[in-house]
Amino acid sequence: MNLKSELQKKIDMKTKPLGSLGFLEDIAFKIGKIQNTLSPQLVNPAMVVFAADHGLTKEGISAYPQEVTHQMVLNFLNNGAAINVFCRQHGIELKIVDAGVNFDFETHPKLYIRKPRNGSRNMLQEPAMTSKEFEFSLQSGKQIVNELFAENCNIIGFGEMGIGNTSAASLLLSKLYSIPIEQCAGRGTGVNEEQLQQKIKVLKQVSEKYSANDDALEMARIFGGLEIAQMIGAMEAAFKNNMIILIDGFIASAAIAVLAKKEASILENCIFCHISDEQAHQLLLQQLGQRALLNMNMRVGEGTGCAVAYPIIKSAVNFLNEMASFEQANVSNKES
Amino acid sequence: MNLKSELQKKIDMKTKPLGSLGFLEDIAFKIGKIQNTLSPQLVNPAMVVFAADHGLTKEGISAYPQEVTHQMVLNFLNNGAAINVFCRQHGIELKIVDAGVNFDFETHPKLYIRKPRNGSRNMLQEPAMTSKEFEFSLQSGKQIVNELFAENCNIIGFGEMGIGNTSAASLLLSKLYSIPIEQCAGRGTGVNEEQLQQKIKVLKQVSEKYSANDDALEMARIFGGLEIAQMIGAMEAAFKNNMIILIDGFIASAAIAVLAKKEASILENCIFCHISDEQAHQLLLQQLGQRALLNMNMRVGEGTGCAVAYPIIKSAVNFLNEMASFEQANVSNKES
Repeated sequence: MNLKSELQKKIDMKTKPLGSLGFLEDIAFKIGKIQNTLSPQLVNPAMVVFAADHGLTKEGISAYPQEVTHQMVLNFLNNGAAINVFCRQHGIELKIVDAGVNFDFETHPKLYIRKPRNGSRNMLQEPAMTSKEFEFSLQSGKQIVNELFAENCNIIGFGEMGIGNTSAASLLLSKLYSIPIEQCAGRGTGVNEEQLQQKIKVLKQVSEKYSANDDALEMARIFGGLEIAQMIGAMEAAFKNNMIILIDGFIASAAIAVLAKKEASILENCIFCHISDEQAHQLLLQQLGQRALLNMNMRVGEGTGCAVAYPIIKSAVNFLNEMASFEQANVSNKES
Repeated sequence: MNLKSELQKKIDMKTKPLGSLGFLEDIAFKIGKIQNTLSPQLVNPAMVVFAADHGLTKEGISAYPQEVTHQMVLNFLNNGAAINVFCRQHGIELKIVDAGVNFDFETHPKLYIRKPRNGSRNMLQEPAMTSKEFEFSLQSGKQIVNELFAENCNIIGFGEMGIGNTSAASLLLSKLYSIPIEQCAGRGTGVNEEQLQQKIKVLKQVSEKYSANDDALEMARIFGGLEIAQMIGAMEAAFKNNMIILIDGFIASAAIAVLAKKEASILENCIFCHISDEQAHQLLLQQLGQRALLNMNMRVGEGTGCAVAYPIIKSAVNFLNEMASFEQANVSNKES
């Protein structure tokens, strides 16, 4: 019997009606398959939050001013943000990366300063990154994940902070799957109707300026943000290290979509933790053929969806390892 | 400013886009309101699982044999069931109640033996309980909750185990809201199509035997199980003690529906933890006007939906207590 059959049998023989743990059974199966074992373990869970600014914010696409990006990074370092609260609750190690914030931070034990420039370029004028800046970002993301992997971390989530980054994700969604940009744009952190029309107008202009092509990474260079580029590098490294990859909301899904275009099997290592209240996220999950664990109308970013979902993923592993089987517990099974 | 406005302001001033923690914000608000404070706390969380057998199982309505009820109680006492795993994961105190299992258990520190008889009566012949048996069950449920409340528990979930109890819940749903019984019956622990038709046939016969009336408690006496009756008493006591009441799946929702018919304000203390894969649960939640936290296709019962959702409820309380405000963190708000 191969591992997949053995895993399914182990799940089915637990003392519960067949299939009755629903999505928890799917997650347990997935994690067992990733780790190639009937007794998977979650070790040293980590969350990396990449922060960067966006040149396009000059065009009035956001509800909040650009300075919020660096202010929120300081908030992360002072343990005051939502992601701090949820990571602390679940013992998840939190790392913050200045992937291109328009601000000069002092050194801090939790902060990696790894940026090719302060903010991406304005896509209305030129691609968001040069090839050199993009490559730098991919490499930085990889390196950070490899360091965590060297410390035995085997499950990792990725978050982001970047005023303007739903615009980048919308453009990526539109270009990767040839979907009209109007359907891909949403309210982000909370633009009003008038601001939304302005956002869509700007995104249309950007979209028309560059033609799509089959090179997903090239799309990410043109339309991505610096934090999205580092996320892509980070996710690819996590896959190469066979780690469990926790996918947060719209931005993180756009990053994994770039990689999935190249190699769909990366999705076998991913758990989509929540469906964001940003409407285009649903569209993107459909394109990826994925179902999300939580649907709680959250749209904070920062990796909060992953952190809130983490204990449920742990529940999946725990039932697989700790529940008694019908035989062990002397409980009559349906067939008996 | 009253507490409700202050609570909403505290939530709105946290460093996140307005409303962006979604359902977590609703839960934080609800718990603050229950505890009448801006800084709510979850203290000594508990889970009480009521187990009982059903006279109606003689009519062939279940996928599993009746003996599974007592076997699963032994499994609970030996820490082997799903609810044991999840309660252990989250530090939830677990109590098991023999509310009417057709088996004589030895004493055990985790087990309350509180039953008026071994299994409910066969509803096809007579009401599930006599008035005396029903009253005994209500009182027992109350007493158990009052004991936990005396130990400072302020958040409590209720689970059940009872082969045949989806039939009781289906009849309650049908009678309380005048919905045809066919729409209220489902596959329970997993009956096949033929068994489902037999189940519906039996439930129709039972339903036709007794006319509905406005006394929801009387409906519970006739159609409920012994474990459902104790749940009703327990939930009422939890409400009187102003505890947070965690509602699990279809059976627990049927129990709270009985009380909500009498006094709808009990719902203000309830958090509906998950929507069960048992189809009629959705119908019941609609009747109650409630949205559930998780939708994970679970249908184990035992209170597992509450236990799996518990850390998310804790996340709601934690963000309210621990996140920085815009002012504290020097983050620019949208209006600025």
